[in-house]
Amino acid sequence: MLLTVIYIVAITAEAMTGALSAGRRSMDWFGVILIACVTALGGGSVRDVLLGHYPLGWVKHPEYLMLTSFAALVTIFIAKWMKHLRSIFLLLDALGLIAFTIIGCQVAIQMGHGFVVAAVAGVLTGVSGGILRDILCNDIPLVFRRELYASISFVAVICYWLCSMLDLTLEVTSVITLLFGFILRVIAIYFGLEMPKFIYKEDDGHSASSIDE
Amino acid sequence: MLLTVIYIVAITAEAMTGALSAGRRSMDWFGVILIACVTALGGGSVRDVLLGHYPLGWVKHPEYLMLTSFAALVTIFIAKWMKHLRSIFLLLDALGLIAFTIIGCQVAIQMGHGFVVAAVAGVLTGVSGGILRDILCNDIPLVFRRELYASISFVAVICYWLCSMLDLTLEVTSVITLLFGFILRVIAIYFGLEMPKFIYKEDDGHSASSIDE
Amino acid sequence: MLLTVIYIVAITAEAMTGALSAGRRSMDWFGVILIACVTALGGGSVRDVLLGHYPLGWVKHPEYLMLTSFAALVTIFIAKWMKHLRSIFLLLDALGLIAFTIIGCQVAIQMGHGFVVAAVAGVLTGVSGGILRDILCNDIPLVFRRELYASISFVAVICYWLCSMLDLTLEVTSVITLLFGFILRVIAIYFGLEMPKFIYKEDDGHSASSIDE
Repeated sequence: MLLTVIYIVAITAEAMTGALSAGRRSMDWFGVILIACVTALGGGSVRDVLLGHYPLGWVKHPEYLMLTSFAALVTIFIAKWMKHLRSIFLLLDALGLIAFTIIGCQVAIQMGHGFVVAAVAGVLTGVSGGILRDILCNDIPLVFRRELYASISFVAVICYWLCSMLDLTLEVTSVITLLFGFILRVIAIYFGLEMPKFIYKEDDGHSASSIDE
Repeated sequence: MLLTVIYIVAITAEAMTGALSAGRRSMDWFGVILIACVTALGGGSVRDVLLGHYPLGWVKHPEYLMLTSFAALVTIFIAKWMKHLRSIFLLLDALGLIAFTIIGCQVAIQMGHGFVVAAVAGVLTGVSGGILRDILCNDIPLVFRRELYASISFVAVICYWLCSMLDLTLEVTSVITLLFGFILRVIAIYFGLEMPKFIYKEDDGHSASSIDE
Repeated sequence: MLLTVIYIVAITAEAMTGALSAGRRSMDWFGVILIACVTALGGGSVRDVLLGHYPLGWVKHPEYLMLTSFAALVTIFIAKWMKHLRSIFLLLDALGLIAFTIIGCQVAIQMGHGFVVAAVAGVLTGVSGGILRDILCNDIPLVFRRELYASISFVAVICYWLCSMLDLTLEVTSVITLLFGFILRVIAIYFGLEMPKFIYKEDDGHSASSIDE
């Protein structure tokens, strides 16, 4: 099925970007593999743990884990050429974001959950791998700071949900959502679209800072 | 029931403080919503995942998720006036801490666990939302650094447990614990009471630092 | 059984090193206890949550939680003498790493999983307590930066698996793995052996950094 193929391409691409992040922190090979696997498979794991959906994806299909580990090792050797492929990775990442979102939605819907939980499951699957990567690398998660990313995952959920309500088949629904979300993400990258930011500075600095900063 | 009302007020207040933390880090709106939801509902989720208590609260009651998301969005617009309400938020947070603790205890006891696990469940429900918020904002969790907080949650557990052993009804037990813990927290804030700190400095700095620092 | 004794010694030692880390961050006593418990029991908890293996160890045996909390409190008072015991702690930590790994493997195998999942379960049990400690203390996890550590856990898994395939009894398998892994770790510490590191620097700094750094 199309979604499985895209999923496999996506986890490979995510693993490779995770490995690069680990390399920026000068981690050893083991850390590179771990960060790669967490980046690629962490989103689905967070969703499954929160929904109580056992066994987790990589427990059922350990071959995904071997694939992402292998992709991490390959990255170590081809890293110096990867920067020329940056735009390809951005596109693969965009594809992965939407594929993850759709899969997350499907899992929640199969478990009988409604729109809100399906939306959370979809978005979490899409973005939490990257959040875990940034926590392990001791960064503030990027997902909240750059161009439209999580919000596109959310819009994809809405698209998926609307298609489902129109009684389209699963395949058609997935393809429409995939195209729609992907195009949206490419537009966001191209024009550098961003969510509005909430910037909060306390005027009365040091008295306030004793409580919460 | 009283506890439900307090719970709803508490998650709203926690979501708003979470949103302010996200604003201090200049996150986009999506990040603000996520940090708010994690702050408000993360404690219960951590407890439920660790105890295997499915479905999680927000999965069963997605309306809580919508409430906290909405509270986060409102916060973005009213943030500039919120500093005048700081003391009200501190009181709501205190109320929430004890309400979360009681709910965490009850869940563990209903599952048949003893005092130690109930205590952990209570304290985790009370404090781990804030810990997750601080990890996502890339801070050292505040809960370990400011006035009595987690320890008041622990004392509330003991109070709750003693009342249960006296065969008081659930309602009376909850009200007594709530009042007791709330007053204790207010006293701690007012007088700036703190737990003793453990400050460990290595004398022989650089040889030690190669191993563990 | 031998493994249980080693396990108890190991969680005590891990709790004490966790408490020292908390002390380096000047946390209060409550934070010290939490970091100690997470360091000692977090690895097993992560494994159990990911495999859906309920109840968690410390939920079934709350006495382990009391032991690690107690060890944390003791550490506060004896910290100033502990630096003379550094090498003993390194040895106990090495023993613990292998014991955790073996226990993690056994849990996965008992649940019917194959080599890949058993390897992940073993390594996660061995190293993720320390990773959680470093996240809570706002550090980049050390496990990816110092001498062979996670990789020795992985080699121990392979040793355990090979022994199992030779139809050795559980006891013999455990003892062989324990000795083999322990000696390997001691050699790694003594000679300062390290995994090769993956160091990735972007040439075209600031244009790249807008995307992923």
